Amino acid sequence: MNLSYNSSLLDSAVDHLSKLPGIGRKTALRLALHLLRADEDEAISLGESLIEMRRNIRYCSKCHNISETEVCDICSSPRRSAEVVCVVENVKDVLTIESTHEFNGLYHVLGGVISPLDGISPSDLEIDSLIERVKEDNIEEVILALNPTIEGDTTNFYIFRKLADYNVKISVLARGISIGNELEYTDELTLGRSILNRIPFSNTFSSK
Amino acid sequence: MNLSYNSSLLDSAVDHLSKLPGIGRKTALRLALHLLRADEDEAISLGESLIEMRRNIRYCSKCHNISETEVCDICSSPRRSAEVVCVVENVKDVLTIESTHEFNGLYHVLGGVISPLDGISPSDLEIDSLIERVKEDNIEEVILALNPTIEGDTTNFYIFRKLADYNVKISVLARGISIGNELEYTDELTLGRSILNRIPFSNTFSSK
Repeated sequence: MNLSYNSSLLDSAVDHLSKLPGIGRKTALRLALHLLRADEDEAISLGESLIEMRRNIRYCSKCHNISETEVCDICSSPRRSAEVVCVVENVKDVLTIESTHEFNGLYHVLGGVISPLDGISPSDLEIDSLIERVKEDNIEEVILALNPTIEGDTTNFYIFRKLADYNVKISVLARGISIGNELEYTDELTLGRSILNRIPFSNTFSSK
Repeated sequence: MNLSYNSSLLDSAVDHLSKLPGIGRKTALRLALHLLRADEDEAISLGESLIEMRRNIRYCSKCHNISETEVCDICSSPRRSAEVVCVVENVKDVLTIESTHEFNGLYHVLGGVISPLDGISPSDLEIDSLIERVKEDNIEEVILALNPTIEGDTTNFYIFRKLADYNVKISVLARGISIGNELEYTDELTLGRSILNRIPFSNTFSSK
C-alpha cells in the first residue's frame, strides 16, 4: 500500500519515518499525524534533536564508543580503572553494562562480531585497535563481554589467540543460571555449564 | 530506568523519540542508535522532513483536512463532486476512504466525536462549520462516515438533528458483514443489522 497523502510534506515525513527499523508505513503515518497534532515546539525540537545528534556525535578514537569529544568521557575519566578493558559488541552493550554499576574500567567497542555468513571478518571489526591498546597502554585485564552466541564465542576465541603473546589476563563473563529464574526452566547447556563452573558459596556474599 | 547515555545529544534524541505514541525508551534508544549508524544524509533528512512538515502543513479552511494551501487539493479540485460531503472523524479517515477509490465528493473532518467521558462536546468539533457549509454551499448529500461506536452514533445523531431543517439528504455508511469474513464469526449485532438492511441482489453487480 503506497498511498499518497495529499501532501508531499506528509508523504516525505512518512517515507523517512518508515525507513526506521521496526516501523512500517502504517506506524509511520500514525507518528506523523501525531506530530501534526502535537505542539509545534515538540515536533520541531524532535527533528532538531535528531539532526543535532547525527551531526555532532562522533566515536571515541580510543574505545569507539559514542562521544561528543575526541576521547569519550569514560576513557578520559580519572576515576575509572584504565588497566581493565571490557570488550563489547556495540554501543548499546556499553549502556547495558554501565546500568549495572558493577564495572569501573574502560570499554572497547568492536562494532560487531565475526560472522562469515554475514560477511563480517576480523578486519571489519576494531580488533587491531584493541591489540594496539593492549600493546601501548598499561592494560592488566581484558574482559570479553560479547553475547553468548556462536559468533560471540568465535570472536572471543579469535581475540584470545591474538592476545596470547601479551602479558594480559583474559576473562569472560560468567555464564550460569539467571538470578530469579527457576532451575526447571533453565536450558540444559546453561545449567550444565553452571555446574561445571560452580563457585565457592562464600563468593556470593562479596559485593563491590 | 532513566539511563543517561554518556551524551547529552543522545539523551535528548531518546527523550524526544520516546514521547511519540507507542515508543518507549528502549525502542527510542534503538532508533537513535540506528540513526547514528545510518547515512548522515538519511538521518538529517528525516529530521528536516519532520520540521518541514510541522512548519508548513496547515488545515484546509473548508474541510479541515491537512493541506499545504489555504484550501486543500480535494476541496479545490474541479473533478470532485462538490455536492456530496463525507463527514469523517479525523485526517486518517480521509486517507482510508481515499484509498478505496470509491468516493469522489468532498470531505469534512470533525476533529473527533462527541464523547462526554473524554470531555469532548459538540462545540469542540467542526460541527458548526459543517452546518455552515450545508447552508452556504450547494450540498445535496451528507454522508456520515464516523466509526460505528457509541460515540460515533451519538455524533451522527447530533448532526442528523442539526441538519433536519435543511434540504439535504443524509446517509450513513452501510453496516453489514465484511467481505471475505465468515458468518460464523460475525457478531450478532452486525449480522442482525445486515439482515434488516438487506439489499437487492442485483445491486451487488453494480460498480462505479
